[in-house]
Amino acid sequence: MPHISLPEGLPGILGPMTFRPETARPMNELADVLLRGPGSLTPGERELIATYVSSRNDCFFCQTVHGAVAAHHLGGNEQLVLDVKQNPSAAGVSEKMKALLAIAGKVQRGGKNVTAEDVERARELGATDLELHDTVLIAAAFCMYNRYVDGLATWAPADPQVYRESGARLAAEGYAASTARQTAAR
Amino acid sequence: MPHISLPEGLPGILGPMTFRPETARPMNELADVLLRGPGSLTPGERELIATYVSSRNDCFFCQTVHGAVAAHHLGGNEQLVLDVKQNPSAAGVSEKMKALLAIAGKVQRGGKNVTAEDVERARELGATDLELHDTVLIAAAFCMYNRYVDGLATWAPADPQVYRESGARLAAEGYAASTARQTAAR
Repeated sequence: MPHISLPEGLPGILGPMTFRPETARPMNELADVLLRGPGSLTPGERELIATYVSSRNDCFFCQTVHGAVAAHHLGGNEQLVLDVKQNPSAAGVSEKMKALLAIAGKVQRGGKNVTAEDVERARELGATDLELHDTVLIAAAFCMYNRYVDGLATWAPADPQVYRESGARLAAEGYAASTARQTAAR
Repeated sequence: MPHISLPEGLPGILGPMTFRPETARPMNELADVLLRGPGSLTPGERELIATYVSSRNDCFFCQTVHGAVAAHHLGGNEQLVLDVKQNPSAAGVSEKMKALLAIAGKVQRGGKNVTAEDVERARELGATDLELHDTVLIAAAFCMYNRYVDGLATWAPADPQVYRESGARLAAEGYAASTARQTAAR
């Protein structure tokens, strides 16, 4: 049961976002810019970073829904998402992505864990300053979203098919639009 | 030296926020709603929660600048800010605030650490659902801001007087307005 009285039947972050639309608005805008805005990392790559960090934070809702968005962007490749969560350095992603995922994993434990060597390694593999910035901020932002979802003990559906449908919808519509439609429908 | 090429001379989060205004906008809007928007916790109380979490995350810039904003709101009481950082349960704040700070400290370590008993205790001391929600989200959001500032190895001034001036300015202007003015002046 959630720690505070939230509208029923809304999965994960949608409960508190409906409870407090004033904070939901900038949170969704940040997600849309970071995960779907113009950028040289693909939306699939950015969602993999979000999924990996959410997995390290043990947030079931976030890792499952963002894993589904990632898989949707990656042609339905759910195995790749699982591989990244389990061991990014052995997953079928580019060497640059492996270096960025390593940085994201360090940010998850705390910003000071990122070293100049970590950054230099990613840069040698082709990472730009914008990609490094966004990797750090995606990882940092999911340390917020994950704590928001779990710190209020929100409800999460168990059925994987629910997440596949959410993943397809979020990939098509984005975060702000999808939240607005789902909460307006109530 | 910062991990990426940031405009020089801007302290802490202002460097990356100037580098990436598209993400700065929702991040500042979120801070303004959470720390200064309408609500039954005072701005001073909300800044104390932000300062405490930043201190637990060992983020020098954030704990110092938000500590200065808190002290400004609290009539210049810098000792109270230090007391809260050191041991909230022995600091001169209300029993309700002690219970909320305990929840914030748990969120800092991970959302799942918050128990129904923690929430019940805060509620018995007068905390409302909105105050509980905002406490969890302030703590979660500072797990983002702190990681953003330290994960990019941003520069922070050492002089306490710089932070007192920033604290007074931020208390008066708010986060979005102050960031806009400081970065436009360059």
